[in-house]
Amino acid sequence: MDLYELGAAAAANAIAEGRISSEELVASCLARIRIEEPRVQAWTFLDPDYALQQARAADEWKREGKTLGALHGVPVGIKDIIDTQDMPTENGTVLHAGRTPSEDASVVRMLRAAGAVIMGKTVTTELATYAPGKTRNPHNAEHTPGGSSSGSAAAVAAHMVPLALGTQTNGSIIRPAAYCGVIGFKPSFGLIPRHGVLKQSRSLDQLGVFARSVEDAALLAAQIIGYDERDPDTRPRAKPPLRDIAAQEPPVAPHFAFVKTPLWNKADPESHEAFAELVAHLGEQVEEFRFPPAFKEAWKWHQTIMEADIALNYEQEYAQGKDKLSESLRGQIERGRKLRAVDYNKALDEIPALNAVLQELFEQRFEAFLTPATTGTAPRGLESTGSPVFCTFWTLCGMPAITLPLMRGANGLPLGVQLVGPRGGDARLLRTARWLIEQVQAG
Amino acid sequence: MDLYELGAAAAANAIAEGRISSEELVASCLARIRIEEPRVQAWTFLDPDYALQQARAADEWKREGKTLGALHGVPVGIKDIIDTQDMPTENGTVLHAGRTPSEDASVVRMLRAAGAVIMGKTVTTELATYAPGKTRNPHNAEHTPGGSSSGSAAAVAAHMVPLALGTQTNGSIIRPAAYCGVIGFKPSFGLIPRHGVLKQSRSLDQLGVFARSVEDAALLAAQIIGYDERDPDTRPRAKPPLRDIAAQEPPVAPHFAFVKTPLWNKADPESHEAFAELVAHLGEQVEEFRFPPAFKEAWKWHQTIMEADIALNYEQEYAQGKDKLSESLRGQIERGRKLRAVDYNKALDEIPALNAVLQELFEQRFEAFLTPATTGTAPRGLESTGSPVFCTFWTLCGMPAITLPLMRGANGLPLGVQLVGPRGGDARLLRTARWLIEQVQAG
Repeated sequence: MDLYELGAAAAANAIAEGRISSEELVASCLARIRIEEPRVQAWTFLDPDYALQQARAADEWKREGKTLGALHGVPVGIKDIIDTQDMPTENGTVLHAGRTPSEDASVVRMLRAAGAVIMGKTVTTELATYAPGKTRNPHNAEHTPGGSSSGSAAAVAAHMVPLALGTQTNGSIIRPAAYCGVIGFKPSFGLIPRHGVLKQSRSLDQLGVFARSVEDAALLAAQIIGYDERDPDTRPRAKPPLRDIAAQEPPVAPHFAFVKTPLWNKADPESHEAFAELVAHLGEQVEEFRFPPAFKEAWKWHQTIMEADIALNYEQEYAQGKDKLSESLRGQIERGRKLRAVDYNKALDEIPALNAVLQELFEQRFEAFLTPATTGTAPRGLESTGSPVFCTFWTLCGMPAITLPLMRGANGLPLGVQLVGPRGGDARLLRTARWLIEQVQAG
Repeated sequence: MDLYELGAAAAANAIAEGRISSEELVASCLARIRIEEPRVQAWTFLDPDYALQQARAADEWKREGKTLGALHGVPVGIKDIIDTQDMPTENGTVLHAGRTPSEDASVVRMLRAAGAVIMGKTVTTELATYAPGKTRNPHNAEHTPGGSSSGSAAAVAAHMVPLALGTQTNGSIIRPAAYCGVIGFKPSFGLIPRHGVLKQSRSLDQLGVFARSVEDAALLAAQIIGYDERDPDTRPRAKPPLRDIAAQEPPVAPHFAFVKTPLWNKADPESHEAFAELVAHLGEQVEEFRFPPAFKEAWKWHQTIMEADIALNYEQEYAQGKDKLSESLRGQIERGRKLRAVDYNKALDEIPALNAVLQELFEQRFEAFLTPATTGTAPRGLESTGSPVFCTFWTLCGMPAITLPLMRGANGLPLGVQLVGPRGGDARLLRTARWLIEQVQAG
């Protein structure tokens, strides 16, 4: 087994126990990148010497007998809308070419404190919206990897790194993770501080992680959850015991609510069939749940909030370089500029209202929602990153969501199964996800 | 000395030490109300028997030797936009006539826990905006008491109660307190929970207190500051030691920044003169400070936020009873409906930006801003509640503000001196206020 194939938890243990060095691990990942990168193009910035230098420093630190963080010596890819003080952060637009932040984003600071090697910056779509970057799907380079966290998903899928960070304002973690056949985990809104991350929408932007196992996703998420006074939506609170709970067996077999959502007709027939089979396989553990009719409006509310916020936050880019923005982003900005404050605020007010209804469902009947991650496998072609419609609702509500690479399409490409828990139920969602993987693999 | 003349702290001590009963105190206040109310009209709901019943219950509680709260047996007036489960809350509009909430507002619950007697509900302007209620200025019934917390200010000024609660979205505590010659104290945004209080603007609405001494204002404010998960803008944090710090002498004489604001020409010549004299009297303790030119926009930002929020929050009243709303409120709602989300959000983003500039000023040079509370003494006539322009900026920034009845106009009516501290500097602001009162009274 090559070291680049190691999961993050296994790698961190091997380093802590002195069985491998961080330098060996990072060198193996770099060798893998050298082979895979021409085809996959996951990275927008990568300095192999600097990565090795960090790895050697980690090894030196260990030799000195100092305390090791949970990710000591483990390389992590960072989506290129997350600031790094030692690498450029160009936000997927030529308008920000050469941008070099003077300060790390809070999450990068937290990763360094945990001992991680900041491997490099992964490709994002244009300003984390729809216009694709250069990345291709590692399973078939003719297909999109999804977006906006395209490079992070592809890099983890191609075994270039065991872990990567991404962000989601609509479907930007779950979608590329599902298309690339890895685990994407977006914790509850407000758990991970966003200071130093490109701001698209204060009410929707959420950080999350890519990994190849639930254990690794828990490990990475646990390092970046925390209060930060520079993100006004984080709160001082006890850290959820992600890793401990994720490792436990559920005391009873979890009960799922299978939700087709009002956009079920957007999913392709192959997905309809695959989910019917999955639901049948899970038997009485699953109950189909129909959204109340009022929930249909949620996609509209999400669009109102997102486009009004994009118009605000990308105003400077529009004013100074409109012709260097994609047509789709210009359209979003132009629609967003016309939106009224009352409609915007009404849409915002729906978020706690929706969560109140959902919370009751969870308390009374369900452990998690089970729903597609995407409309199907990764579409052919690189001009689109696919549809986020099966993520929109959960992102709006700020609920924790995870996609699991449990199925495949006829084209051999991965098809993701998304599980969604109640806000704040992050640790249990991971436990449930692990249970579901074992259940499906046993079947 | 009649009991109704007692301050709240003195009354609470006298009750705690058994020198007077709550029933005696409340009866004295009710007698005062019987005499003054026909002229002042501060109350929209008052049931003397029920107030006495609460007082007797407080006395019984004490007789049983139970622990007493800081306001045990002391009557407090409640602005009629703050919910009470045992009294109507009609929000100053016929559209809400007969409204009887099933739950106390958080602050009312906190006051009951502190042992207070909820005396009754005080007159508010229409939905806490501009259209006046029936209340008159106790110093001259031909003049407005100011608004929107008209009844709370007038009731405390007329010695009907030692304490009352109010709210401020623009100038609704400071202005009526200044016009009525009492102390009005609006703590920092986010300190006092607003659950159960009529929502006009989430980003601007703030609760505060009326009293006749700084000590009493500190006593009342201390009871209602606290975290409440039902007000998303409150935060879990240590309580500021308002009463202790307010009672201390400042270690050095405080340095004031006298701010005329860009709206100085709105203040009448009498105020110009009065403030010139006050500044001269304070000598080297005061320095005139000119606002940076960019600050001029703040009044516009405030209007944008307030009107967009009013349009949202009073949408139902407008839809169902437009013809029963005042013309001025209809105008605010109709302007607010047209505002764009980008302009609204830009205005919101200015709040932390302004505070950052101001915070530095405080750290480097000033203990507090010294500025008029109003454009002059209470205007003659009852058709308007006067102008809030000398409060707008500080309310927008969420800074703690207090008005002190230190001066008088040629018409014998009170003229308030407003002190404003940095956000979170509530306790020191009270200490500074006490110092200023002593300084002026000594001179």
